[in-house]
Order: sequence, then C-alpha cells, then structure tokens
Amino acid sequence: MRALARYLPVAGWLRHYDRQTLSRDLLAAAIVTVMLIPQSLAYALLAGLPPEVGLYASIVPLLAYAVFGTSCTLSVGPVAVASLMSAAALGEVARTGSADYLLAAALLALLSGLFLTLLGILRLGFLANFLSHPVISGFITASGLLIAFSQLKHLFGVDAGGHNLPQLIEALAGSVGDTNPYALATGAAVIGFLYWSRRGADSLLQRLSVPGHAAALLAKAAPVVGVIATIAIAVAFDFEGKQVALVGEIPPGLPSLQLPSLSWPLVESLLVPAMMISIIGYVESVSVGKTLAAKRRQKIDVNRELVGLGAANIGSGLSGAFPVTGGFSRSVVNFDAGAETQMASVFTAIGIALASLFLTPFLYYLPKATLAATIVVAVLSLVDLSILRKTWRFSRSDFLAVAITIAVTLLFGVEAGVSCGVLASIALFLYRTSRPHIAEVGLVEGTEHFRNVKRHEVLTDPQILTIRVDESLMFSNAGYLEDRIYADLAASEQVRHVILMCSAINEIDWSALEVLEAVNERLAEQGMQLHLSEVKGPVMDRLQSTGFLQQLSGKVYLSQYRAFVDNRSAADRPSAVSETA
Amino acid sequence: MRALARYLPVAGWLRHYDRQTLSRDLLAAAIVTVMLIPQSLAYALLAGLPPEVGLYASIVPLLAYAVFGTSCTLSVGPVAVASLMSAAALGEVARTGSADYLLAAALLALLSGLFLTLLGILRLGFLANFLSHPVISGFITASGLLIAFSQLKHLFGVDAGGHNLPQLIEALAGSVGDTNPYALATGAAVIGFLYWSRRGADSLLQRLSVPGHAAALLAKAAPVVGVIATIAIAVAFDFEGKQVALVGEIPPGLPSLQLPSLSWPLVESLLVPAMMISIIGYVESVSVGKTLAAKRRQKIDVNRELVGLGAANIGSGLSGAFPVTGGFSRSVVNFDAGAETQMASVFTAIGIALASLFLTPFLYYLPKATLAATIVVAVLSLVDLSILRKTWRFSRSDFLAVAITIAVTLLFGVEAGVSCGVLASIALFLYRTSRPHIAEVGLVEGTEHFRNVKRHEVLTDPQILTIRVDESLMFSNAGYLEDRIYADLAASEQVRHVILMCSAINEIDWSALEVLEAVNERLAEQGMQLHLSEVKGPVMDRLQSTGFLQQLSGKVYLSQYRAFVDNRSAADRPSAVSETA
Repeated sequence: MRALARYLPVAGWLRHYDRQTLSRDLLAAAIVTVMLIPQSLAYALLAGLPPEVGLYASIVPLLAYAVFGTSCTLSVGPVAVASLMSAAALGEVARTGSADYLLAAALLALLSGLFLTLLGILRLGFLANFLSHPVISGFITASGLLIAFSQLKHLFGVDAGGHNLPQLIEALAGSVGDTNPYALATGAAVIGFLYWSRRGADSLLQRLSVPGHAAALLAKAAPVVGVIATIAIAVAFDFEGKQVALVGEIPPGLPSLQLPSLSWPLVESLLVPAMMISIIGYVESVSVGKTLAAKRRQKIDVNRELVGLGAANIGSGLSGAFPVTGGFSRSVVNFDAGAETQMASVFTAIGIALASLFLTPFLYYLPKATLAATIVVAVLSLVDLSILRKTWRFSRSDFLAVAITIAVTLLFGVEAGVSCGVLASIALFLYRTSRPHIAEVGLVEGTEHFRNVKRHEVLTDPQILTIRVDESLMFSNAGYLEDRIYADLAASEQVRHVILMCSAINEIDWSALEVLEAVNERLAEQGMQLHLSEVKGPVMDRLQSTGFLQQLSGKVYLSQYRAFVDNRSAADRPSAVSETA
Repeated sequence: MRALARYLPVAGWLRHYDRQTLSRDLLAAAIVTVMLIPQSLAYALLAGLPPEVGLYASIVPLLAYAVFGTSCTLSVGPVAVASLMSAAALGEVARTGSADYLLAAALLALLSGLFLTLLGILRLGFLANFLSHPVISGFITASGLLIAFSQLKHLFGVDAGGHNLPQLIEALAGSVGDTNPYALATGAAVIGFLYWSRRGADSLLQRLSVPGHAAALLAKAAPVVGVIATIAIAVAFDFEGKQVALVGEIPPGLPSLQLPSLSWPLVESLLVPAMMISIIGYVESVSVGKTLAAKRRQKIDVNRELVGLGAANIGSGLSGAFPVTGGFSRSVVNFDAGAETQMASVFTAIGIALASLFLTPFLYYLPKATLAATIVVAVLSLVDLSILRKTWRFSRSDFLAVAITIAVTLLFGVEAGVSCGVLASIALFLYRTSRPHIAEVGLVEGTEHFRNVKRHEVLTDPQILTIRVDESLMFSNAGYLEDRIYADLAASEQVRHVILMCSAINEIDWSALEVLEAVNERLAEQGMQLHLSEVKGPVMDRLQSTGFLQQLSGKVYLSQYRAFVDNRSAADRPSAVSETA
C-alpha cells in the first residue's frame, strides 16, 4: 500500500478521507468551478480554439492530476501563458478554426504530457533550474504584454492576428477603422468593472455584512458577474444584429476520449514547442505548488509532480483539448476556499462537466469582448517591468538576461523569447566564469590573513607572488588564469615563488590541470617554484589521482600563511611573525 | 611607429633586422621548405584537392602571416586536421575534383579568414576557451584515426571515400579486392622507412659524423627522401603502366590572386564549417605559438594572433587555396633550425614559389601512396588514446567529454564531433554546478574551524543548522539549495537558527537571491532565523544593493564561529569557548 502511495499519491490521501474534509473540498470546488468557467472559455479563445475545448481542458486533466499529482491544492487547467504559446505553435502548422488546428492542439497536449512524464520518470526535474528566474520573470512579463495586445482585436471587435508585437500592431493598425463600438463599450465596461472589483467589491460586500473571508472569495467571482451581465445586455440590445462577435453555439456534451491521429511530420513540427510549453508550464506550476505546500508545511515532489502534470496533459490530449498546467490564481482560490485534497479538483471537474452538458445554451450570447476583457485584466497582473530596474541595480548580467528575454519575446514571439533567454543566461554565466576575479594578495600585518593588495595595506615579499582565484578552475577560465600569472610575472622580475591560494577553488577540471602542469613546467624552466595553498579536500583528491603533485616544483601548504612564511627570504623575515600555521 | 607596430607586428621587428638574423632565417627557411613540399602535396590530397593547391596554400598565407602574426617562429600552411575538416565540408557542397570543389575550397578559406579577423578585431579570442582540453584532445585523436583510415584507399590504390569511420570501412571493404600491389608495397615501404627514420636516421647520421643538432634536423627531411626514392622507383618500374595512382601533371606557375566568385547559397552552407575550421585551427596554432614563444620568453597576443591567422586564410582564399593554420611539426622544425623572425617564413614562401615554378615536372611520377604514407605517419603521432584512461582516473565528467567527442567524431564525422564535444562539456559543467557539494558543518572542538559533520568529529547544537555550499549560488543550483535546506530542516525539528556559511560562495545571481528571500520568509513564518556567515566582499556588495539584508530575519556574521557562538542556547554554551571571532 505504501509502495502504491509512492507512485499514486491519491492512494495515500484517499484512505483517510473523512466527512469534514469532504465538506471543505465541496465548498472549494463550487467556488473554483464558478471561477473556472469564464477562464476556460477565455483561454480557449486566446489559444484560437472553440470555447467548448476550454471546458474540456478543465475536466479530464483535473481528474488525471488528482490521481498522480503531489500537491493537495494545485488546480490545473488552461492558463494564459501556455495558451499563448499553444496559439503560436498551432499557428505554424494549421489555420485557426480548421479541423487540423483542433487536432494539432490535442496532439500538442499529448506530446507535452508524454514529455513531462518522461522527464519525471527519468528524474530530470532539475533541468527546469536552467530556466533562471530573470528569464522566467522577463518571459512572463513579455507574454502578459503580448497576450493583452492580442486581445485588443476582440475588444475592438476586429480581425487582427499575430504572434509578436510588430505583427499585432501592424494588423491592429490596419483594421482599427472597423471597430465595433458595442464590442468596445462592452470590453471597456468589463475591464473597468473587474478592476473595480479587485478593490471595491471586497469592501462593498463587507459593508453588506458578508464576512471578510467570504467577501474576498466572492470578489474573485467578479468575472462570472461580468459574464452574466453582458449576456443579458447582449440579449437586450440585440448584439447579434449589431455584428458584435459572440461566443455562439457551443455543442453541449462531454469530451470523447480518443487518441489524436498521429502524423509524423506534424509530431515533428510540434515536438519542440511541446517541450517548451511543458517546461514553462512545469516551472509555473511547481512554483505555485511549492508556495502553497509551504504554507501548510506540506511538500511536493518535483519529479512526481512532472508525472502528475504529464498525466494531466495526456488526459487533455486524449479528450481533444490543449496544453494545461497548474494555474496560479485558480490554485490560490482553491487553497483559500479551504480545499484540503485533490478531491476538490475532482468535484470541480464534475462541476465543469455539468456546465458543458447544461450551461452551454446560455453562453450563446456571451460577447467575446467580455472574455477578452477578463484575459486582459488577468494577464496585466503578470506584467512586472520593475524586474528590469531591480536586476539592473543587482547585476548587469541578470539585467541582460531579463532584457534579452523581454525584447526577443515581444519582437519575435514566445518560442524565440524562451530559447534566447535560456541561451543568454547560460552564455552570460559561462562568460562570467571565464573571467573570474583574480587578486594578488598579501599578509595583513599582525594576523595570518591574506587580502587583496589593491584593497588593503598588506605585507608582500618581492620574491613571492601570491595569486588568489575566486572561482573553480576549469576549461572556461584556465587560459585566463595562465595569461594572468604570466602577465603578473612579467611585471615583477624578482619573483622566485608563485603561490596559488586555492581557498575559493571548489573544483578543478582536466583543462585546468593541464594549464597548471604547463605553468609549473614553465616556471621551473625559469628557476621559479609553484606552490599551492589551502587546497580543498575534493580538489586535493583530484590532484592526487594524477602525477601533478610529484611534478610540482614547490609544495602544497595547508595554510597560505605557512606558504608565505616558509618561502620568505630569511633576511626579510620579521622576527615578530610567529610561524603557527 | 609604435602604434603601427602594434597593429602590424612586422613593423616592429623589421627595423632591427640584421645580417646574423638573416643568415639564421635563411637556413631555417631552407629546411622548412624541404619539409613543406611533401606536406603541402599530401594535405592537398587529404583535402581532396589537386597537388598544386597545396603548394599555393604555402605561399601567400605565409607572407600574410609574416606581416600580421605575432609569433616569431610559427609556420603556417596546410595542416592535417583542418584539411580533413575542409574535405568534410567541401564534400557536402561539391563533387571532389570538380571546378566547384576548388572554388568552394577557396571560399572556405576566405570565410574562415574573415571570421578569424572579425574575432580578433572584436577581441573575442577568449571564446576558444570554451573548447575544453578534453574535447580538443579527443577531437585531435579521433581526427588522426579518421585521417589515417581515409588514407588507406591511397595505400591500397583503390577508390573509397567517406567522412566517418562506418563510411570509410564500408567503402574500403567494398573495394579492397582491387588492391594495387605496387601501390601497397610503396606505401608500406615508405611507412616503414619513416618510422625507422624517427629513431634510426638520427643515430645513423651521427655515426656518419653529422653533428647531433643537424642530424636531428636532417632526420625531419626523411619524407623528402621517401618522395625522391619512390619517384625514382616509379620511373624505373613503370608504375604508370601498372595503374599505380601518381600525382600526375601539375601545372607549373604561381597562384593568381583573385576574389573567389561569391554565391550566397554556397556562402551560407560553408559558413558554419568555416567557423569550426577557424576555431579548431586557431586553438591548434595558438597552443603551438604559446609553447614556442615561452621557450624564448617571448609573448604572443591571442587577439592579434587571430588577425594574423585571419590574414593568412584571406590570403589563401584569394590565391585559390584552402584553409591553413599554424602547424605543429613544421613550426618546431622552424624553431629548432634557428628561425628568429617571420622573415624565415617569407623565405620559405619564396622557396615554395620556386618549387611551384620549376619542380612540378619532377613530381609527375610521385605515387600518391607515398603521400598517403607520410600523412599516416604524421597523424598517428596525434592519436593519444591514453587521454581516456587519464581522464577516467581524474574525473568522470572530463572522461565523458573526451569519450563523447571521440565517439561522435569517429561515427558521425568532424563537425558533429566538435559540436557535440563542446555542448557536452558545457552541459556537464552546468550539471555539476547544478548539484554542488553541500555540507552540514559543525565546530571542531578547541578551534574556530567548522567542518563537515559527516567527515569529522564536531560539535553541533540541536537548535542550529549550519550549511556550507561549496559553489557560487546561481540559477542552476538555487533550487537544489532550497530543497536541501528544507530537507535538512524536515530531519531536525528543534532547529531555531539556520546559518548559511558562505565562505565558498564567490558570486550570487538574481535567481539565488530570490531563493534566499523565499527561504528567509518561509523560515520566519515557522519562527526560525536565517543567518549568513563569512560572506565575501563582492557577494556582500550585491546583497547590499537589494532590500534582502533588511528583510533577513537573522544577522550577517563576519565569521562562522561568531555566528555559532552567538546563537547557541545559553545553557549549552561551554565556558571553554572564547568568543574571539
């Protein structure tokens, strides 16, 4: 049983399920369901898919995650950034609205699910770490801006597609003359209402004697209020006759489970996008999951989380939907509403299934502008350009990673943005390690400490050159160190002893070893000795596995102080310096 | 004048040129010329080009390097590995022997020259550092094997091309039945003679009273002896009538200088190979240049060296030849023969030019098997499979980098080999930094030192958890540290203080800062304090540029000892421990 619970988290918590938990989970599910209906419709719209696909993406995936996921309160389903990325990927292989587009969406979800599951089984969750925080922040911010821009067409009631800022602006500029004033008014009103509801609804409800906690939760249902109100208005003012884009007919019913038909060329062209969507979705989801788990001192397992999200996406692919992941706002609502287990998600899935069966006729008159407005308000909260200022103050390379990610995402789209961001952060890191901080150090008089000669008043010996490298020695910086030693030597002719102070060297690789061998040999030819001091255990182990220590012209000292004192010319040696190393 | 000398090294040394230097340079040039003629013919054969192209590659490039290069004794020209890489690249775009093939070769040299010059002007020489030593060693070894295999067809006198081991073996197996016994006998005899000459010729010449130094140099002329002897044999035994492949007619004359006609699709398909050939050639050349310069306490400037090699390749491209670089054996001979300046290379170029004008009729009867034999002997000295054993003992990741490079080069060819090698060494490095050594440390009693609790008998306090990370904190390992801290905390319930000992942290990036903020916040929520100790200057500067230190629930201590003593529960504090931090 315990082994089963290890691979199927549901088996762990389901045994202890009791009535009190049931009632809490039911309440949370009811609230999340109400919130999820407009979100599902809106993100389907964003991904270029029919509205029912959004509902489908909120049924089977939730059940699959409930069985395999490790977070108790994460709520999976369609999310903004993954929907935008899906739209970009699908736009490359099929025409929006075509049957091929739907097929490709399901295939994308399936591939994404298989990839996530594979990563989880191979325990490769750590790979997501290479998506640095600045890259993620920059990417989310730029995606938020792109999404908001992409929704302007629905707000203006015009036709204007595009997957990056220049395309979107050009398309919009060309069609803004056809603006539908009713759509625009509806969208603007909903945006205004949603922004007001963030602050105002809460206090209004409290004044109406709704308890604080419930009021905060009810305020999250504002989009539903917007949906109902604009449906009523659309019916009352005959929006259909006024050419306002409406959601229109949604076939009622449940998704049918079937394997999307696999064509190899399609699989090939969707593979890389599927991997990117998976990684971004996983990072987003895990960060939500970790935050919520920490609040209740629970834990999530990143590798099993990959399997959970993988199962959710496989479920999404098999039910003809599109890529899903754990959503931030939705999970927070689920958590705040008191959800204790994934049973809440099971109830939510049932709620959405009921909505797909019985609610769709009522959504016929829903203006697309309403959905666009809920998207804009949701994604603008993701936009945080202050990250540029913060990272600028912190370090230039983090700033560059953010700036490159934002610029490339806006100018060339999401896939190029993520790729360039990751490559840039790795390249910047390699560049930094390739030119480490190297200091010539001297003895702080009266102590056994050695500090940078440029920053401190220290004692040096013209016959001794001590160099401290503040970085592990490896291929990217071995040549730099070599050049630096020779340059320092060229500047000081009396030197007989070169001491490499290794206190900050955590590791050494083969390239660096070869450089040390070359330096040692060359110094020996010129009658100088190379010494090492304060070599760490693992580095010493490495060196001992080679013949280097036998070739070394000098010695290896436990402390820099001992290395310095031992090699000073006798005449210079101040009697005050005691030789306790 | 000094400014001129800075950009045109020739202007520096030419002013002080005297008669004694002249006579030394002339002698060296004579020896190198004799050595270079068979090499030039052989490497042209290896690159799939007519023999005269090899001679052309040893004229203008030498003059161009003499003007722009910074090494006094480097001898540029065609080399084995670059010739193999050229053959692989050219085989993709044209048929061997066609006019297009020749054009593409010149274009490849031109592109390579422009790329090197650009790198030099932009001072990007450090990029070559990312080609780690294990990757270079593995690549050179695998290339040597590939080259030796590729020459078997000439030794057997059959037709059998290919750019990787499986292709070569398959082609050879299919054609070995057509072996020409005269070619095979010639090749085998030359290989035997060359191997013998390495040891035997030297001592034989000394017994003939030739002075030691001169004997060693004369032994290097063994390939020329082989050439002359086999030409004589080919004439005497009518090799032409016996279908032995001969060098044949070489049009006498000098190369004409002209820009290769540029077709954009061709440029596009040669660009990446040109970059790879450039980088590999540059690394090879700089390592030779550095070694020789060090022996005479001279210096080369890596960025100006890029310009020098760039000029040589542009010269090669303009004179219809193919990519060149500084050759190891040739430069060593030049150095040992007493060359003092690049004037020796100018004389060598004149020597090769004279050979192109007047010597070509004599080469008509030279068997290709002779050239193949000189190539095989030359490249087998590059093969060093012991690098596998050495790196295996040293570290698994260096071993993996070597093994991947060798395997991919042999199985898929040179371009794939270099690319995979570089990517593998970067990926392995990133992987290592992503899981740094993290130790829980305790106080070594009677000292102020803190060591790993798993390795040493140390004093700990149940309320204090001290963690030391032996790596800079950054995006690739920030998540790992976070997980580790939480895991350690889960295992010890009494902890009130978490101390992060930062003595090995050379740098911190934005991702790591965000993780520290999250850890600090989460610990604070659970009533624990986070402290830092022994934070280095640059890291402290970074932290101070943010609000982190204000948010920090604990303190920043100069020493780990002070951090430990200050936070011990009063009751536990042993009176013996003095509080000098």
